[in-house]
Amino acid sequence: MTYCVGLLLNEGMVMLSDTRTNAGLDNIATYRKMFQFEEPGERVITIVTAGSLSVTQTTIARLREAADLPDATPETSILLAPTMLKVAEIVGATLADVRREIDQKLSMAQGASATMIVAGQRKGGTMRMFLIYPEGNFIEATEDTPYLQIGEHKYGKPILDRVVKPNTTLADAQKAVLLSMDSTLRSNLSVGMPLDMCVIYRDDCRVGIQRRIEAGDESFRNMSDAWSKALRDGFTQITI
Amino acid sequence: MTYCVGLLLNEGMVMLSDTRTNAGLDNIATYRKMFQFEEPGERVITIVTAGSLSVTQTTIARLREAADLPDATPETSILLAPTMLKVAEIVGATLADVRREIDQKLSMAQGASATMIVAGQRKGGTMRMFLIYPEGNFIEATEDTPYLQIGEHKYGKPILDRVVKPNTTLADAQKAVLLSMDSTLRSNLSVGMPLDMCVIYRDDCRVGIQRRIEAGDESFRNMSDAWSKALRDGFTQITI
Repeated sequence: MTYCVGLLLNEGMVMLSDTRTNAGLDNIATYRKMFQFEEPGERVITIVTAGSLSVTQTTIARLREAADLPDATPETSILLAPTMLKVAEIVGATLADVRREIDQKLSMAQGASATMIVAGQRKGGTMRMFLIYPEGNFIEATEDTPYLQIGEHKYGKPILDRVVKPNTTLADAQKAVLLSMDSTLRSNLSVGMPLDMCVIYRDDCRVGIQRRIEAGDESFRNMSDAWSKALRDGFTQITI
Repeated sequence: MTYCVGLLLNEGMVMLSDTRTNAGLDNIATYRKMFQFEEPGERVITIVTAGSLSVTQTTIARLREAADLPDATPETSILLAPTMLKVAEIVGATLADVRREIDQKLSMAQGASATMIVAGQRKGGTMRMFLIYPEGNFIEATEDTPYLQIGEHKYGKPILDRVVKPNTTLADAQKAVLLSMDSTLRSNLSVGMPLDMCVIYRDDCRVGIQRRIEAGDESFRNMSDAWSKALRDGFTQITI
């Protein structure tokens, strides 16, 4: 499995993904699940993925290829598409196509599947974030629900429900997604380090911060320990 | 859905269940999911249930009937069974029978199903807690994993993973299950108030505390607010 989360806030966007993939518990590997499509200052698109690796890798490869083609058009390239809505449509159509093709090869009752979060902004446009379903349809993050999750989303949802609002600062947003991930890592073996985190500042149209957090990362461990301590202290002080 | 949790600790056992049942989002009702079978001082058995109401109600009714029959035997009555292991076997066999019968009536691909936690002690015996699967097989809580959950268990797992140990006091244990439930209630609509909680003291062989917590319960709301505050304060103090 996987856990990825994206926050759409007034100041910008924060995305976080883990890197664990597994085909059975005895076949665990590390794969990047966060992908950047960027023309700095003009356009930035971040995609995080969950689901069958054969589906997500092929989808990302096709999106990259379509954007790199010399005869790329606004209909086919997410780096030329006129709006983020069109970007979501291209990603959705590509994902659905790949999934259908792989499903035919597998001829299983329940075939390969994947979901993605697509976040981005083009110069002069609005910052937007979409969750793309395996069938290619999608939903969008809004003021009311300023975050999207894919994969093992339940363990890390309570902290987001409590602290994330559209006016949350980007510093707090990074803390929130890391603590949300921390809860997931503790409770579910199929989600694992290292982590990839990125921050996109509003109207900046480039990847502002891109950070890989390795298993031994000291600041992450300190944060995780401090959070454990805060929870235990809070727990101790509460009376029923 | 449902959320039920049971803790097996050195000092005793704590069980908590919600009461929401739904057949579709537009058909929500309140049903007790916690059932006591008790001969105070001699034997106590608490069962909490998750899953299809037709399965759980029929299973509990049959267990009750089998225990009340004048010719009840240690093979059929959970109030006469010589060990808690035998109790788990009777509950498992009854659950599997009921499920099979209802499945035949439904003739659906995915039929009705249910899981249960059975906890108890008989005089002179050991305090034990089992999770019964729909097929009638079961697992048991141990020192290493002193809690069992059924239903919507993921939201409320991180807090249990952090604070529950076999030597946790029963006061802390009640806090822990209530906070675990609080996280679940906030993040999942299919779990709802009121709640049923019970405490069984070791070697007491009776229900020590039985408490229904209604939607407006002041102490639960205070605890929930205090926990929210503790989480927010902890969150604020952490630096990344």
